[in-house]
Amino acid sequence: MTRVTTVKRWDRQTDVVVVGSGLAGLAAAIEARIAGSDVLVLEKMKGYGGNSAISDGVMAAAGTALQRRAGIVDSADRMAEDMRRAGLGLNQADLVHTVAQRSVEAFRWTIDFLGMTYQKRVDQFGGHSVPRCYTPLRRSGSQYIRPMLDKAAQLGAAIRTRTCLETIVRDTDGRVCGVAVRQGRSTSDAGPGERVWIRARRAVVLATGGFANDIAFRTAQDPRLSAAVGSTNKTCTTAEALREAMRIGAMPVHLSWIQLGPWACPDEKMYGVGPDFASYVAFPYGILVNPDTGRRIVNELADRKTRADAILAVGHPCISMTDQNGVVHSGHEIGHCLRRGVVQSFESLEALAAYYDMPRDAFLDTVRAFNQGAAKREDGLFGKPILAGAGPLETPPFYAMRTFPKVHHTMGGVLIDTRARVLDLQRAPIEGLYAAGEVAGGIHGACRLGSCAITDCLVFGRIAGQNAGRTVLPR
Amino acid sequence: MTRVTTVKRWDRQTDVVVVGSGLAGLAAAIEARIAGSDVLVLEKMKGYGGNSAISDGVMAAAGTALQRRAGIVDSADRMAEDMRRAGLGLNQADLVHTVAQRSVEAFRWTIDFLGMTYQKRVDQFGGHSVPRCYTPLRRSGSQYIRPMLDKAAQLGAAIRTRTCLETIVRDTDGRVCGVAVRQGRSTSDAGPGERVWIRARRAVVLATGGFANDIAFRTAQDPRLSAAVGSTNKTCTTAEALREAMRIGAMPVHLSWIQLGPWACPDEKMYGVGPDFASYVAFPYGILVNPDTGRRIVNELADRKTRADAILAVGHPCISMTDQNGVVHSGHEIGHCLRRGVVQSFESLEALAAYYDMPRDAFLDTVRAFNQGAAKREDGLFGKPILAGAGPLETPPFYAMRTFPKVHHTMGGVLIDTRARVLDLQRAPIEGLYAAGEVAGGIHGACRLGSCAITDCLVFGRIAGQNAGRTVLPR
Repeated sequence: MTRVTTVKRWDRQTDVVVVGSGLAGLAAAIEARIAGSDVLVLEKMKGYGGNSAISDGVMAAAGTALQRRAGIVDSADRMAEDMRRAGLGLNQADLVHTVAQRSVEAFRWTIDFLGMTYQKRVDQFGGHSVPRCYTPLRRSGSQYIRPMLDKAAQLGAAIRTRTCLETIVRDTDGRVCGVAVRQGRSTSDAGPGERVWIRARRAVVLATGGFANDIAFRTAQDPRLSAAVGSTNKTCTTAEALREAMRIGAMPVHLSWIQLGPWACPDEKMYGVGPDFASYVAFPYGILVNPDTGRRIVNELADRKTRADAILAVGHPCISMTDQNGVVHSGHEIGHCLRRGVVQSFESLEALAAYYDMPRDAFLDTVRAFNQGAAKREDGLFGKPILAGAGPLETPPFYAMRTFPKVHHTMGGVLIDTRARVLDLQRAPIEGLYAAGEVAGGIHGACRLGSCAITDCLVFGRIAGQNAGRTVLPR
Repeated sequence: MTRVTTVKRWDRQTDVVVVGSGLAGLAAAIEARIAGSDVLVLEKMKGYGGNSAISDGVMAAAGTALQRRAGIVDSADRMAEDMRRAGLGLNQADLVHTVAQRSVEAFRWTIDFLGMTYQKRVDQFGGHSVPRCYTPLRRSGSQYIRPMLDKAAQLGAAIRTRTCLETIVRDTDGRVCGVAVRQGRSTSDAGPGERVWIRARRAVVLATGGFANDIAFRTAQDPRLSAAVGSTNKTCTTAEALREAMRIGAMPVHLSWIQLGPWACPDEKMYGVGPDFASYVAFPYGILVNPDTGRRIVNELADRKTRADAILAVGHPCISMTDQNGVVHSGHEIGHCLRRGVVQSFESLEALAAYYDMPRDAFLDTVRAFNQGAAKREDGLFGKPILAGAGPLETPPFYAMRTFPKVHHTMGGVLIDTRARVLDLQRAPIEGLYAAGEVAGGIHGACRLGSCAITDCLVFGRIAGQNAGRTVLPR
């Protein structure tokens, strides 16, 4: 059996085709151009930046000057160890180390090369053993996208929007030599678009993101994640490019490890404002109850997976709630959550129970039991650590939000090596094919730590671009 | 881009090709033959039965007469619920229900059709909520293989050994229409063998087992499982057929969920006798310590994954141990473990510590702390339930075994539907291709329960054979 690629005519030629214009894609495009290659970036949506643009933009780096000034002792080894602990050891060690070791260089690159500015503080997100998370001056992934688009344009990289990858084309030796795309078609478009064949003389870089919004693909891996479960992502995060890479023999890894945010609200789209309430106010300073029973279901400060699994097991949204005292102690504003109607306020616990159609006595019992435990700083039910100021829940107004997990990040993807080359089912590189960002797998294992995705995208995006841009032209 | 299958000449033709002669393969061959198809079974090894032959042969079925006589209330729904709880909800619900609903029929089939006999007792293995596990009169998977081989032969199914699948061949419509094999080649053979093209007029059934012994493939999914980690499986459990199914576009699921037995001994091959000591004697009636520190590392009665992960995190074998009292209370014989040199006996705790080069005082401290807790029936360190008769560890001889996890079962594989058809990356059936047994994925999710693999193999093996055998001949 042989495979024959029948490309009658290339409509267009370039050295490096980059698929996706998010963080990883633009980093790859910039580096490939610097390496001297002609570059064409393909973006299926109308706008640039993919899902990266709506990320919070917080980036992890280990061993920065900012840390040293704050007296924080950190190292690449320590960051890699944190990532592997979260990843349950499923991470490929060399990939994790590459991200950690190059994190400072990537962080400096965003400042020195892209001209970005960060807030002065260093945060410690969950799972990190020291503070090493840096927030752009405006807290958004778009803060990276804009200067990267400018740099890519200055360097002469071409970008084409509304152009969706259809086929990865290989020559008779199995080497990736181009792509077939549909122009004028994005995921959300109905029309078929015009098919265009684009030759990639040196390489194709996949930087197509995750598959959080691909219901068919994600439910194959985790059937709990039906269409009833929302996503924090833009709708563009579908699996067509990942499928296409798998179709030509890329090794998939960790596809069933799909990260859910347990702090999301089903009454708004994407990430929204609900997490500001659930994550920072209700979970630490209140409780999460099943409205069917009026009972708590989990340690509200357990890890993301434990909490999300508990709510999914209930099968419908639960109610996260706290009182005025909890809001004050949290130090967070929730006015924007109330204005958007995501969080509701109630003058009494009874009114709250009635609104969500909860069995009143059971709910009042639950609050009473929590309050009694909180007074002794213990949670007899789930062993949740009781923070200072958490409980008693008795000071009106009471605040509540319907709470249901949303798909946040897909750890799985095609396996790459430290040069960002896509590996096949024998773990040999597929010549001419690179991948970076969320479409690549093996870096985060079972669980990606917050702030490590930006680092991953920049580090492996740049590596992919450097190697793709220098790929020796095949004879 | 098109794919052309260039088969110059079919060397042999049949209706249904079954790849693999374990439980699932033979069940498929028998049913396909009964459905009226010509059948050819291909087995890469010299002998029949694959890894099934060395299984313990214990089978789960929900709602049997044996259960009713013992007053055990059970149902298919209950069995499915147990399987899904263990599988962390990653199991495809329709596949789990198919296994559970057809479990009694499959069990009856082994008795009425195969003529098998089971021990009179009904056991309750870990994770099952009621006793529903049946042990063949002789506790071995070979008890199924022999009558199935006889039946297959009587029915006129042909079987060819030392014949290894190389390529799944599809026609220009993408329909699976045959295979290319190497004759005279099994995994363990060095020679290239003779390539033979076999046409399958109706269908190909993959029943090729798991990939517990495929180091390259399993370390892509879980890098902790290097060659230093043994396997309870026969060496034949490699991934070449799974890779080939993925190469032609089958949807892989749950590949990174690999079940480890925490009760294994690295000083013997495969399953061995070590688990008889660790699982039934040392874990319930003793402790597991890290020889570097002399300290316990985990609740010795936690689930398999927790215990295996804890030992893997230590990175080298730990020591499971108990005393004479523990052996007596366990009610188990360990003479065979001693005779094989897998378990060692010592006249004192000091001698045991010296033999394994453990820090003596720390180890004695550990034993003392465990004994003190055991006297109060509590384990202050890991909350292990203290059984009656567990501790104090003070009665010589003391018994110990080097303990390190072995790869036991690979939950992942190609996604099938309830008709055992292999699904592609869009979740559409790949025409002409079926799968059953460990190579199929989606049934057990994150964790297979003991005794459910036999049921799975028989249920889906038979379904695959029935459907393959009745597949309408393509025009």
